[in-house]
Amino acid sequence: MKINRNYLNLQDSYLFSTIAKKVNAFRAANPDREIIRLGIGDVTKPLAPVVVKGLVSASEDQGRAETFHGYGAEQGCDFLKEKVRLYYLEKGVELESDEIFISDGAKSDLGNILDIFSADNTVLIPSPVYPVYVDTNVMDGRRIIHVKATEENGFLPLPDQKIKCDIIYLCSPNNPTGAVYDKAQLGKWVEYALSNDAVILFDSAYEAFIGEKELPTSIYQIKGAEKCAIEFCSLSKTAGFTGTRCGYTVVPKALVRENVVLNSLWLRRQTTKFNGVSYVVQRGAEQVFTPEGYRQTREAIAYYKENAKIISDTLTELGIWHTGGKNSPYIWLKCKDGYDSWQFFDYLLESIGVVGTPGVGFGEEGEGFFRLTAFNTKENTQKAMALFRTLYEK
Amino acid sequence: MKINRNYLNLQDSYLFSTIAKKVNAFRAANPDREIIRLGIGDVTKPLAPVVVKGLVSASEDQGRAETFHGYGAEQGCDFLKEKVRLYYLEKGVELESDEIFISDGAKSDLGNILDIFSADNTVLIPSPVYPVYVDTNVMDGRRIIHVKATEENGFLPLPDQKIKCDIIYLCSPNNPTGAVYDKAQLGKWVEYALSNDAVILFDSAYEAFIGEKELPTSIYQIKGAEKCAIEFCSLSKTAGFTGTRCGYTVVPKALVRENVVLNSLWLRRQTTKFNGVSYVVQRGAEQVFTPEGYRQTREAIAYYKENAKIISDTLTELGIWHTGGKNSPYIWLKCKDGYDSWQFFDYLLESIGVVGTPGVGFGEEGEGFFRLTAFNTKENTQKAMALFRTLYEK
Repeated sequence: MKINRNYLNLQDSYLFSTIAKKVNAFRAANPDREIIRLGIGDVTKPLAPVVVKGLVSASEDQGRAETFHGYGAEQGCDFLKEKVRLYYLEKGVELESDEIFISDGAKSDLGNILDIFSADNTVLIPSPVYPVYVDTNVMDGRRIIHVKATEENGFLPLPDQKIKCDIIYLCSPNNPTGAVYDKAQLGKWVEYALSNDAVILFDSAYEAFIGEKELPTSIYQIKGAEKCAIEFCSLSKTAGFTGTRCGYTVVPKALVRENVVLNSLWLRRQTTKFNGVSYVVQRGAEQVFTPEGYRQTREAIAYYKENAKIISDTLTELGIWHTGGKNSPYIWLKCKDGYDSWQFFDYLLESIGVVGTPGVGFGEEGEGFFRLTAFNTKENTQKAMALFRTLYEK
Repeated sequence: MKINRNYLNLQDSYLFSTIAKKVNAFRAANPDREIIRLGIGDVTKPLAPVVVKGLVSASEDQGRAETFHGYGAEQGCDFLKEKVRLYYLEKGVELESDEIFISDGAKSDLGNILDIFSADNTVLIPSPVYPVYVDTNVMDGRRIIHVKATEENGFLPLPDQKIKCDIIYLCSPNNPTGAVYDKAQLGKWVEYALSNDAVILFDSAYEAFIGEKELPTSIYQIKGAEKCAIEFCSLSKTAGFTGTRCGYTVVPKALVRENVVLNSLWLRRQTTKFNGVSYVVQRGAEQVFTPEGYRQTREAIAYYKENAKIISDTLTELGIWHTGGKNSPYIWLKCKDGYDSWQFFDYLLESIGVVGTPGVGFGEEGEGFFRLTAFNTKENTQKAMALFRTLYEK
C-alpha cells in the first residue's frame, strides 16, 4: 500500500494557531486590557430573515411524505440553478442552466476541480494568496509558479508572456489583499489564457462587495472568458453562509481542452464523487436571490463595507499605504516603518490591543504587510481605528 | 493544458436512464396499466419529527446574532461527533473523537478518500458492485481487480492469498445484493489486509438494517480492523437523509502505512478541500442519535424491513434463489430460468407491471440476477408480490 507522498510536501500552517497563542498569552498577562479582533475572516451577522424562513419551511417539507425530498441532482436543484442563472443575467452574463453547479462552498470545488486536470500541468498562483490554492496543488504534485503581488503592481499582478503555465488562479476581490482587478486587467489574463491554452480558475467569493459599477463581478463579463475560465462563487460572504454552506461553480460548455468539453468532465466528477447539497440548504440559498433576500443580504454587506471604509479612511488620513477596503471586506496595509509582519502584530496587540493578521502568513510576498477585516461591529471598528491613530499621530 | 485523461476510460452508465426509457414506453403503450416500482434505491418516508425539530431550531439559531454559527470545524461539530462516538461505543467499538469525521454523505468520502492514496496501488473490488467504487478508481488510473460475488459464495467473496492488492472495497450489508458478512468472514478480510499491508474501505451505509445480533454492524467489531480499515457510514438510509445529506467516516489513528498515520492525511485533506457540513444539517443529524430519534428512525427502518420480508418470504415460498432482504433493504434474486437480467426486466414489466433493476447493471457478475428494493409502500409491495406469484405458480 502506497500513500500519496505528495502530502508529505505540504507545509504546516501555524498562522492562526500562532495568533491564538499570542492573544491568549497577552490576555493572561493583561487580564484587564480590552482586545479588539480585526483579524476575523468569518461573517458575524446572522442569516437574513427570508433565508431563515426558507430553511425552516424546507425543514418542515422534509417531515411530510408529500413534500419530502430524497436524492436530488448532484448538480443542484433546478429552482436554485435558475436563480443563479438570472443573477448572472443581471450581470450581463448569459449562462445555460447546465453550466451551473451548486456546491457546498467554493473551498470544496476549488479543491475538487483539480481532479479533472492532469497532475502534469504547471500552475500559476499569485502570492500572497489564500493557502488552499497552493496546498491542493502540492497534494497532486503539480509544478507551481508564484507570481508576485506587490506594492508596485497594487497587488494585482498581470500576465507575463515569457512565463508559461496551464492553470491560473485569480481571486478578485482578493483574499487577503482586497485588491480588485478592473476589466482591462482581467482582459489581459483572458488574452493570455486563450493564447496559451491555459485555464483560469476564478475565485469570485467576494464579488458581492464590489460597489463600483465599472469593476467586473464575474470573469464572464470579459469577452472570451467562457473559453478559458471556470468561476467559483459562494454564498459564504454574499449572504453569511459560512456555517450554512452553499456556493456555485460555473463551467461554460465553450471551455474545451484537448477536444474535451470540461463541463462534461466536471459533471462526471460531481455525479461520481458528490451527492448534491442538502435540499434544506438549497431552499435557504434560493431566498438569497429573491428581491427581499437580495435587499436583506446586501444590508449586511453594506454594514461590513461601512466598517471597511472606516478603516480605509483612517489609513488614508494617516498616510498609510493600503489596498482593498473599498470593494472588499479586507484591508491590506503596509506595516509601520521598521516592522515586519509579526513584529507589527505584536506591536498592535501590546500597544493598543488590536488583533490583525500578519501578511507573511499568506506567503513570502506578504512580508511587511498586514490584513485587517471588516467583520467586527462598527463600534469596535471605530474604537480600533481611534487607537490606531494614537500610534501614528504621536 | 492537459486534462485528466483517465476520465476518458470511464464507461457511461445507462442503467437507470434505460430503465426510465423502457418504463415510459410501456406507460405510453399501456396507459391503463398500473406500474409498481420496486427498483427505487431511495428512501420514501419523511424525516423523523425530532430531526425536523432539530433542523428548524438550528435554522432559527442562524437567524439570531447570539446563536449564529459561522465556519465550523471541517471535521464536524463536537456535539455530533460525540453522539457518533457513543453510537459506536454501544456497538462495543471505542473511538476517540478525532477519529470521527462528519461528512455530507458516504459517496463524497468514498470518492475523496482516494486522494490520500497513491495512484500506484492495486484495488480489489467485488462484482456486482455500487458503481462508484470502480469509477472513482478509474478516474485516478488505478489498477482494478474484480473478485466475483456469485451464487456459489452467497455473493460474499472471501480473500484469496494468491491475489495481491492494496485497497479493498467491502460493502456489508451489500448494495446491490443485500448479502451481509458475518464476523468470521470479515475476520478473514481483516487478516488478509493485515498480512498484505492493504487497507479496507468498508462501506457500512446499510448497517442500521442489520437485525441479527451476531452480525457485525461495524468492521471495528473485528479485532485488528483498526489497523487496516476505514469505515464510511451515512444517515441516508439510517435516518432518511438522502436529500438532507449527512454521514460520517472513521479513520482510526492506529491505521499507519509507510510510517504515516492515515488519520492525519485525511484530516489534512478535509481541512484543505472541505469546509464542513452545514450547521443546520448537523443539528438535525444530532437528533438521530437521541433516544427519541433512534426510536423514530428505527420505526421507518422496521417498515422497510417488513417490506423486505414480504418480498423475501414470497421468493422463498416460490423457491426462487435470493440473498438479502433480511438485514438489508435489497433483495437480490435469480432471474427466471432462461431469462437474462434485461429480459427478466422486460418480462416483469410487461406481464405484471413491476419495475426492478437488472443485475447486470451493477457489473458483469450480476448477469442473470435482479434487484428488488423495500422502499415502496407496504400496500404496493404486497400487491407486487401477489402479481409475482401469478408468474411462478401458473
